[in-house]
This record gives sequence, structure tokens and C-alpha cells, in this order.
Amino acid sequence: MTTDERVYKALEGLGAAPLWRFYGNLFPAQPKSRAVPYRWDWRELRPHLLHFSKALSLEEAERRVLMLVNPGLTDPPATVNTLYAGLQIILPGETAQAHRHTSNAFRFILEGDGAWTTVDGERVFMAPGDLLLTPGWHWHDHTHEGDAPMIWLDALDYPLVNALEAGFYEQYPQRLQPVTKPDDAGSRQFLHGRLTPAWLTQDGPNSPVTRYTWQETERALDAIADTADGSDVDGVVLEYSNPWTGGPVMPTIGCRVQRLRPGFEGAGRRHTASTVFNVVRGEGATIVDGERLEWSEHDTFAVPGWASYRHVNTSASADAVLFSYSDEPVMRSLGLYRTEEADPGA
Amino acid sequence: MTTDERVYKALEGLGAAPLWRFYGNLFPAQPKSRAVPYRWDWRELRPHLLHFSKALSLEEAERRVLMLVNPGLTDPPATVNTLYAGLQIILPGETAQAHRHTSNAFRFILEGDGAWTTVDGERVFMAPGDLLLTPGWHWHDHTHEGDAPMIWLDALDYPLVNALEAGFYEQYPQRLQPVTKPDDAGSRQFLHGRLTPAWLTQDGPNSPVTRYTWQETERALDAIADTADGSDVDGVVLEYSNPWTGGPVMPTIGCRVQRLRPGFEGAGRRHTASTVFNVVRGEGATIVDGERLEWSEHDTFAVPGWASYRHVNTSASADAVLFSYSDEPVMRSLGLYRTEEADPGA
Amino acid sequence: MTTDERVYKALEGLGAAPLWRFYGNLFPAQPKSRAVPYRWDWRELRPHLLHFSKALSLEEAERRVLMLVNPGLTDPPATVNTLYAGLQIILPGETAQAHRHTSNAFRFILEGDGAWTTVDGERVFMAPGDLLLTPGWHWHDHTHEGDAPMIWLDALDYPLVNALEAGFYEQYPQRLQPVTKPDDAGSRQFLHGRLTPAWLTQDGPNSPVTRYTWQETERALDAIADTADGSDVDGVVLEYSNPWTGGPVMPTIGCRVQRLRPGFEGAGRRHTASTVFNVVRGEGATIVDGERLEWSEHDTFAVPGWASYRHVNTSASADAVLFSYSDEPVMRSLGLYRTEEADPGA
Amino acid sequence: MTTDERVYKALEGLGAAPLWRFYGNLFPAQPKSRAVPYRWDWRELRPHLLHFSKALSLEEAERRVLMLVNPGLTDPPATVNTLYAGLQIILPGETAQAHRHTSNAFRFILEGDGAWTTVDGERVFMAPGDLLLTPGWHWHDHTHEGDAPMIWLDALDYPLVNALEAGFYEQYPQRLQPVTKPDDAGSRQFLHGRLTPAWLTQDGPNSPVTRYTWQETERALDAIADTADGSDVDGVVLEYSNPWTGGPVMPTIGCRVQRLRPGFEGAGRRHTASTVFNVVRGEGATIVDGERLEWSEHDTFAVPGWASYRHVNTSASADAVLFSYSDEPVMRSLGLYRTEEADPGA
Repeated sequence: MTTDERVYKALEGLGAAPLWRFYGNLFPAQPKSRAVPYRWDWRELRPHLLHFSKALSLEEAERRVLMLVNPGLTDPPATVNTLYAGLQIILPGETAQAHRHTSNAFRFILEGDGAWTTVDGERVFMAPGDLLLTPGWHWHDHTHEGDAPMIWLDALDYPLVNALEAGFYEQYPQRLQPVTKPDDAGSRQFLHGRLTPAWLTQDGPNSPVTRYTWQETERALDAIADTADGSDVDGVVLEYSNPWTGGPVMPTIGCRVQRLRPGFEGAGRRHTASTVFNVVRGEGATIVDGERLEWSEHDTFAVPGWASYRHVNTSASADAVLFSYSDEPVMRSLGLYRTEEADPGA
Repeated sequence: MTTDERVYKALEGLGAAPLWRFYGNLFPAQPKSRAVPYRWDWRELRPHLLHFSKALSLEEAERRVLMLVNPGLTDPPATVNTLYAGLQIILPGETAQAHRHTSNAFRFILEGDGAWTTVDGERVFMAPGDLLLTPGWHWHDHTHEGDAPMIWLDALDYPLVNALEAGFYEQYPQRLQPVTKPDDAGSRQFLHGRLTPAWLTQDGPNSPVTRYTWQETERALDAIADTADGSDVDGVVLEYSNPWTGGPVMPTIGCRVQRLRPGFEGAGRRHTASTVFNVVRGEGATIVDGERLEWSEHDTFAVPGWASYRHVNTSASADAVLFSYSDEPVMRSLGLYRTEEADPGA
Repeated sequence: MTTDERVYKALEGLGAAPLWRFYGNLFPAQPKSRAVPYRWDWRELRPHLLHFSKALSLEEAERRVLMLVNPGLTDPPATVNTLYAGLQIILPGETAQAHRHTSNAFRFILEGDGAWTTVDGERVFMAPGDLLLTPGWHWHDHTHEGDAPMIWLDALDYPLVNALEAGFYEQYPQRLQPVTKPDDAGSRQFLHGRLTPAWLTQDGPNSPVTRYTWQETERALDAIADTADGSDVDGVVLEYSNPWTGGPVMPTIGCRVQRLRPGFEGAGRRHTASTVFNVVRGEGATIVDGERLEWSEHDTFAVPGWASYRHVNTSASADAVLFSYSDEPVMRSLGLYRTEEADPGA
Repeated sequence: MTTDERVYKALEGLGAAPLWRFYGNLFPAQPKSRAVPYRWDWRELRPHLLHFSKALSLEEAERRVLMLVNPGLTDPPATVNTLYAGLQIILPGETAQAHRHTSNAFRFILEGDGAWTTVDGERVFMAPGDLLLTPGWHWHDHTHEGDAPMIWLDALDYPLVNALEAGFYEQYPQRLQPVTKPDDAGSRQFLHGRLTPAWLTQDGPNSPVTRYTWQETERALDAIADTADGSDVDGVVLEYSNPWTGGPVMPTIGCRVQRLRPGFEGAGRRHTASTVFNVVRGEGATIVDGERLEWSEHDTFAVPGWASYRHVNTSASADAVLFSYSDEPVMRSLGLYRTEEADPGA
């Protein structure tokens, strides 16, 4: 054993290690996400989801969800680096146990009618295209009294929260919490974010809009359809915002909806934020780092951070509408957001 | 002449004066506004306004407006301490000269149809109940192509801006500015303040919503009519807000709309902000420092700062809706906002 | 009487007036302050101040102060549009009655030693060049136990607060309030604004630094004397700041100190803020709208808003140091700050 | 193979997985850091550092640093969950290659004299106890012209930045960058954070103070030594702050210094932030989750997030001073900060 080897050995016992043996790994020239570009196929996954809705009770499952696991992020499972997506199903007559966690969450409704989530005492109803927020540490449980299965996209930031070692979880003592507020109060009180109840004041860092209905989202898109310039990368793209601040809906997750006009060919770009998309309607493709992800209604796809991408609406006659969420608010808060034009090739 | 008298005389020549001779006036125990509680009667004033619409051309008048001058604030004329209100009329076929000023302004439409204001290149259309913003230093001119006279409430903060000696004014070289943006773009792009165009960024301290239509305001009130707690002072009261910040529409003026349910008897309160009200519909009274101001549709009334007030809807069957604006944003920015419960008597 | 005359008459009774008869006065092309450029001569005023220190007891005067009244602003008296300056004297053995007011105030010490102001239970000591804050609604009384008269510049924003009708005043039940905090705690806890006590949190909109000592100010100027670029208008100019926010010391008043090197010839500028200067040391002149104000130690002078000005240090060998305060924070908060290069002539 | 097994198999091929098989791991009742409480022994490590200063050239090493690797965080190596600490040594006559990275970094000087870091064109000098910032994406290189080895604690947030996949790195084309600013300009211009250069404006999210000298830190501690209440957990504890905002020195790292009076027995507490301590002087112990970490001068120790801890100064006559840094700004920005009283036992 040389002197150096003896010293390296001694260092180990003292909790120390030579930086010069790790240097390159710790300081890459630019980020390369462990996540890969990937598309989850709605038409393939939906039957399996229906299978489990019969094969597995909600009492057994607590939540009956197919996690959309990025092939590059299997342990722990995640969809992009900091965010998670899953497909949840609940049947008529079922309820899901009340609990809360520090992870911020939301649901984006894909199909069905007649269910609601109760969030901190308020019943929040669901219809396709609605965005329902469950901000961190809010009690929530689900109830379905409709006629057909209800399916939604579940989104959480637990990969981030767990990486930051800040996750707490608590189960409610009863299966369902009591209802203490008017139905859909958060959504109705802020029907327009531009007219805010003056007898209320901001309470916490999240949006008070518990439900952004698709009906209102569609109205907003329609109102500017013919006139808006939009973005050369993203088309006509709207950010769901917190009426108290004008900022993102939750401190760790930003949500957007975008309309790509028929034949839209977006410019290429990349940024340090990681994004998950869900297709509201239409058909197209997103080219990510040279890989072409073809998508149609209700498909989900991942664009990893710093991957180059561009969107294409392959229909010459119909528009395409994408819902998306990302960790851009995290990147901005921490001074780590960076973006540039970039050609994804292909 | 005593020594003291000689010294006082000498001081004058040096630009100095003894504080002890002014003390009490400079530091009152509490503010007493020079403004008085006052109501301006729409049914009385409207005919005079129509008179001048014939007797005086817009070329002569630049703007054809009856100023609503508070009896306590005649020189310079103002409606409450920092704010002004006027009734403006424009006839079919008329235009009003383009100009701009550092004063923030808005219009609240009372009657008529078919007119628009062009604000920094955007045509902003008018219908009764609409709130149209003309933030400081934005070019604006008016055009009326409807069939009947168009009347609105004009509001400006020139009493404040002039008191702060910060007023600038400029006339546009042509009578009308060119139109460079889509019609009502500001209003349509922010149809919901909770869905904001992601390809735009905040530009200046004012709201980008050029027009808050009554249609949307009514929808917002309807959405919570049956469920909202509201305030014991103001009923169901909504603040017009700036979608970029969640704050007031302009840095010096806050705007609100409130619905008083049939038979509403408000609690008494006072605050350092001065407020001007306009009655959208209904009949009632506001008791201000012991004086009862009876009001009905389109009347304007003033509640001076630190005056105690309470609202009453005198109808047992119809609701009453009030629009109002105040300098509360000024008081808050400068750390001078103060409020407390207070019984106006009567 | 013509019809128009009858209508004008009728309008008066209804609280209305024709805008077209007031238009030009209300919307000037640019602001013209009622304040004039003016210098108050320390060597002339000091003897008069000493006179009153013998001729008038503090019991009679409450505060023994010569107000520095701008010839353009005599009723109510003010030094510039929104701000006041006065010269206060207190003799050994005297005390001044405890009171509080919503006006923000500070003292800038000119001569003497051995006195203190008690501010909300904290004794704040005084030495020449020190800046002592008395933010709005803080109790304060003065005590002098030194050997010679103590003289300081008093500054208040009461012209602003009274114009906004937001002034409250209260006298303390005893002559002096009890001392409840360590001496000079606010100053010592924030000796560097860049090292802040982590067991405290922000409490109110004003700086927690009760005393900015001249000793520390001089150190700061010395530390950059030879290397700083400074401003071509103001030389090496430092803003007294609030360590909790980085912003101005109080929401309505900003304070600065600037060093003009020997022979400094400043560039011309103007802005909507109004400023009061006090000469800490040196000799020079400030040209304001063509008028040359010559100044030397302890003189006070006024630069009205939107007046063009430039500073000159007339000494070829000694530097000059100016303390100043302005309403720039008000102008910025309300979106009314504007500035441009401007030659004051002369 | 059962139906379920076939479905699970199929899901894998589709990038999906059943949440109910992962649930408990993803949502723990409370966080349990992978990091362990640990102390790095200065007296043991210093000789090894000196060994490598002779055995390894800076050309070979780029940076000659012993990483302080938490036994629970070896791959990738980190000191606490989001932060890194290392001991760096540089010899007289040496230089270290200029580079930049998005990771925020700082140095806290342990021994030596005569070296400097050049940061974006400014030479920043080093003396024991000084804190030198190298905010993200600032070029930096080191030069040592003193007589004895120079040793400092290196701190970086690369574990966080890499976990967020936002790390960029670039090498400067020459070994050393040119000097373009006055020496120590950032430190001298903000000698007091409470007097800020009015000709500069905020540029980026980090503090402009390039060097917080120990001399000034000691003055700040001395100024309140006898009078400050301090915190029952942390004694007299000061936060290094950004004079432009009053906030932390960099968006991801907060730095503090605290003095524990002789015999200090701190109260127990825990919070979601992870902290690294370095002992400036004195002797004591910190009990962390029941484990007693004894420390003396220059030792480094780690308190993982949500671990309970309390500090003890074991000397009855001398005070103890600790420097520390943590990810509290991250936790607060993202709404994940939580704290409570907690007894670490032992």
C-alpha cells in the first residue's frame, strides 16, 4: 500500500474523500436528465385501468392508480425528474379514504361525471377537462355517485418533495371528512381571477381556485382564438394562475393549456424545467431530442429538462389542445431557470 | 416692538417660522376631511348634461363633462380628497381628441351603446356597467358610432397627482390615434385573470385588462350569490384586480362592486381611504357621519376618509348593486391605512 | 340671464361644474412646484434659535423648533411639497413631552452631545451627523443631560400626511415614557444591515435601525472613497436602507448621504421627487432652475420636484458632504416617479 | 401466470406500474433523512490535507479538496441532503483554474493569509473567519501569494442543483481571468448593508457582498453581546443577508453565525432544513437525535433535516461561536419549511 493509498484509506474512516476523483461527475458541462422522452398510450392503458377497477377494491388500494413511470426513473418511480403522473379510476358508489400530505397535487379530469373531491371541507366537482387543486397539507377524499367509471390524471410533486426530504403524510381518522363549506366555493368565488372577494385575504402560497373548470378554460381560449399572437414555440398558451399573486397555482408546479392551430409547426426550444403533457384533443407529435412522440387524445408524454423539443399539429383542419404541468416555478424561485432556442432535430 | 417681535420679524426674512404657533393645526388628533358626505342626483343632472350635448361642441369642450364637485372641495375641484368623478356625454358621430396624462383614469358606463375608447392603439368598446381603464400616460381618444347619447362616469386621480406635483399632459398630434391592436385585446386576453397569456409579461404597474365587462361582473356576482358570506359592512363585495399581481387595478385607485341583498343593514365602519360610489341598480341609503344619503340608480355619492358609514338596502325584495372606487391602494402603499368599527349614528 | 347661465347656476346647486372651464389648470403640460429653490442660512438662524432657547420654555413650546418654511409654501407651512424641515434646540436639563403621530419623522443631528430620544421604549442617543428615525405612530420624547445646547434638523412628512387626510396624534399620559429596551438596541442589532438578528422578524414598514450613527456612515464613505465610480449627478451617494427589505427607511421618506470630491461639477438632472438637503461639511453651490444656491456647513436647501439641478463643490481641496431626504419612495410606490437629464442653466 | 400477473407484466411494457405496491414508501409519515448526524474532526483531517498539498499539484487536481462526505450520502457524495462541504488547501505561489458553474458556492476561511479569489473580475481577499460568496455562474479562480498554506471550508449546493438536473459548468479559456474591478469592491460598497450605493441597482438574485469579513462580523456580535435576548435555541444568531432584499445571501443557501455564551444550554428544535456547522471558536456539543457530537475549533458537523438537536457550550468561561449554512431558503421558497420544538434526548 502506497502512502497515498494509506491516506485514502484513513480518510474514509474520517468521513472524507478526495474531490479530484469525483470532479467530472459532479460538474457536467450541461444537465442530462435521467428521464427520457416518453409517451404513455391512453388507448392501451385504459383497458388495464378498467381491469383493476374490478379486480381491486379501493379499500385494498387506498388509491387505484396506474403510475406513469418514466423508463429512466424507476426507483423511486417518477414521470419526469421532480413530478409524477398517474391514471386514477374510481367507480360509481366508491369512496377514497381522506388523507393529506405535504406534496402538492392536482387532478386533471379525463372522463366521467358525478364524482367530487372534498378538499379541506369543500366539495369540488369534476367534469372532463377540469383542473382540481389539492395543495400541500390539505385534507382530501373522493366520492363517486355517477353512473360510469371516472378517470383522471393525478399529478404530484412527491419526487421533488421526497428528494428534498420534506414529505409528511397523515390519514384522516374517518374515511371521509365533513363538508363545512359551500360546494365549489373556491372556484365560484374566483370565477374570474380578476374579481376577487374583498372579504377574504390570502391564506397560504397556493391558488384559492379549487377547480378551474374546462368550461371557463374553453371560454378563455375562444375569446382570443382569432386574434392572439401567441408564442412561436407553444401557440396560444395560457398559464393557470393564483388570483392572489398572479403567480403559479402552487409553489412547485405550474400548469398551462395551449392551443395549436391546424398545421402548427412550433419553433424548437429547451429549458431547465421538466414538463408533463396530456392531450386534451387533437393529433400531433412532439419531437424531443430527435425522438418523435406521436400523440392523440388523452395520451400523456414527458419532455425532460434541458431536452430540445418542438410541437407539431399534424391535422390540417382541426386544432390540438395540450394541457401541461412543469417545475418551472421551482427553477425560477431558486434562480436555476435557463432557456434557449434549440433544434431537436428529426 | 418687543425683542420677540423683532426676532419673529427677522425670521420671516430668513424663511423661518416658530413651530409653536402652528402646532395644533399641523397635528390634529384625528383626520377631518375637507370633503363632506354628498350625493349627486342622476335624475337632476342628466337633463343638464343633455343640454350641453347640444349647446357645446366637442371641439370647444375637448371633453364634455359635468364635474361632480364636493361642496368642501371647490378649489381645486374634487369629488373626494384625492379623486375626481364626472359625468361625460358623447353624441353619435362625435370623436374626442386623443391625449394622455399621468393621472390614472377609468370610465364606468352608465348608458348608451356603440362607442369605444382607443387606448394605446386598442379599441375598447363600451356597454352599460363596463369598467374601462385608462392608466396613466396611455394615449386615449373616444369615438361614438351608435344611435343615442353615450354617458359614463369619468374617474381620475388628478387631485392626488396634482397635490403630489407629478402631473404631465400631452396632446396627440392628430385627433385620433391609429389602431394597432386587436379590438378589446386586453379584455379578451385576460377574460379570466386566472388564465394569463404565457407569451406576455407584466408591463407597468396597472392591470392589463382594458375592459371589465358588466357581463362578466354579473356572472361573478351570480356565481356566488346564494352561498357567499360576504362582509357584514359591504355585503358581497368583489375587488377588480390586476391579473399580473392580484393587487388593485392601478397603483392609486382601487375599484369594487358590491351586492347588498334585499333588506341589507350593514355594520358601521370607517377607514382613512376616501371613496366614491355609483349606484348600478336598486334603492337604498348610506348613513355617513350622521347624515343620510338616499340613493337610487346612477346616483353618485361620496364617503370622505375617516367618516363613519353604513349601507342600507331599503328594498325588501330587490337587491342593490354599488360600484365604488377609492384611494385605499395609496393609503396601504404609504403605510397610512387605518380602519375600525364605527357607528355613523342616525 | 342666458340659458347657459341659468344652467350653470342650476349646476352649482347640484354640486356640479363644467370641466371645460377648468381644463387647462387641472392638466398642466408638466408640473410646476409651488415650492421655490431656497437656502436657509445656518449662521443667520442659529443665533435666533439660541435666543428662543432662553426666551421660551419647553413646557410652553411642546417642541422648540424654527420651521424652515419655503416662501412658496406658507399655508400650510412646508419646506418642499410633501416634506417639512425644522431646526430644533433643547437645553441641558430639559425634557420634551412624549407623544406620537402618524407622520413619519427623523432627526439629523447638527451639534451637541448628551441628549437622547426615547422611541417606543428604547433610548436612542445623539451625536453630530447621526440619523435617528421616529417612524409613524411610535411614541417619542427627548431628554438632554449634556453640557451645551443640542441642535438638530427635524424632518417630517406631515405636509403629505395632512394632504392625504391621514394624520392622527396622541399625547402620552406622562411627560416621559418608561424605558423598556436596551439602549440603542435597534442600532446595535443592525450594526450591519447585512447581518440581521435571526430571532427577530420584520415588524412594520419602517427600518428597525433607530439610529444610523455618523461614525458608521463615515466608515462606509471611507471604505469606497478612492475606488467608487459614483454617479455623475450625485457623486458617491449612499441610500440609508431598511435591512429587512433593502428599501427606503420609511415608506414616505428616503434618506441619502453623498460625497462630492474636490472640484466636483455634477451633471444636470430633474425628477418628480422633491428633496431637502443639509450640508454636513464643505462649501459649494447647487444650481436649481437657473438660480444658484451657495451653501456651507449646516445650511439647508430645497430642490423642488421637477426642478433641474446640479451640484458643484467649489473647493479645489476639500470634499463636500450632503445629507438629503426626499419623497422618492412615494413617487415610486404610486407609479409617479419620472426622471431625465436637464440643464438648470446659469 | 394469473390474470393480474399478466396485466402487471403488460403494464411494464407500457411504462406503467400499480401505485398500491409503492404507496407507503412514497408517502412516509414524516421525513427521515438519509444523512446521519456526523462530525468531521479538524485535528485529524488537517494533516492529510497538508499531505496532499505536497503530494498532488493543483494542475492535477483542478481543486485540492477533501470532501466531507456524510456516511449516509456517499453516492453522489454530499454533506447533508442538498449541500456539500469540503476542506480546500492552496499553497503559496499556486493558482487555481478559472471556471464557473450554476451551483452557488462560498468559502469560509479557516487559516492563512495572502490569497484571493477573483470573482467576475473582482479580487476578493481572504482572512480567517471571512465569508466569500461565489454565486452561480460567476467566474472564479484562486491565487495565493502568502507565506503559508491557506485552508478554507468550501460550500456548494451541487447536491441540490444536480438533483434538480440544472447543473452547467464552463472552464475559462485562460488559467486566470483579468481583473476589471477595484479590489474587494463588493464588500466595500456594502460595508453596511444599511447604506447602499444609490448609483447601482440589483443585478441577480444573490447578495452583492462578495466578502463578509470576520472583522465586521465580530463587530456586529460585539455590538449586541451584552444586551441581545437572542434565541433560546441558537443564542445570539445573525443571518448574513442580501442588502438589496434583506433575504438570504443566495437563493439556495442561507448563512448564519451564532454566539453561545459560556454554559449555554440550548432548547431542542427541529426543522425541515438541513444544516452544516463549522466551529469558529470554543468547545461544546450538539445533541442530534440522541447522538452527542462533541466539537472544538474548525470542526465541521452535520444536522440533517427534521433531526432534533440542541446546542451546548461546555465551557463555563469562554463563549463559543458557530458558523452555519442551510437550505432553509429553498424550503421557504417552495412552501416546505416546517419547524417545531423537539427534544433530541441524551
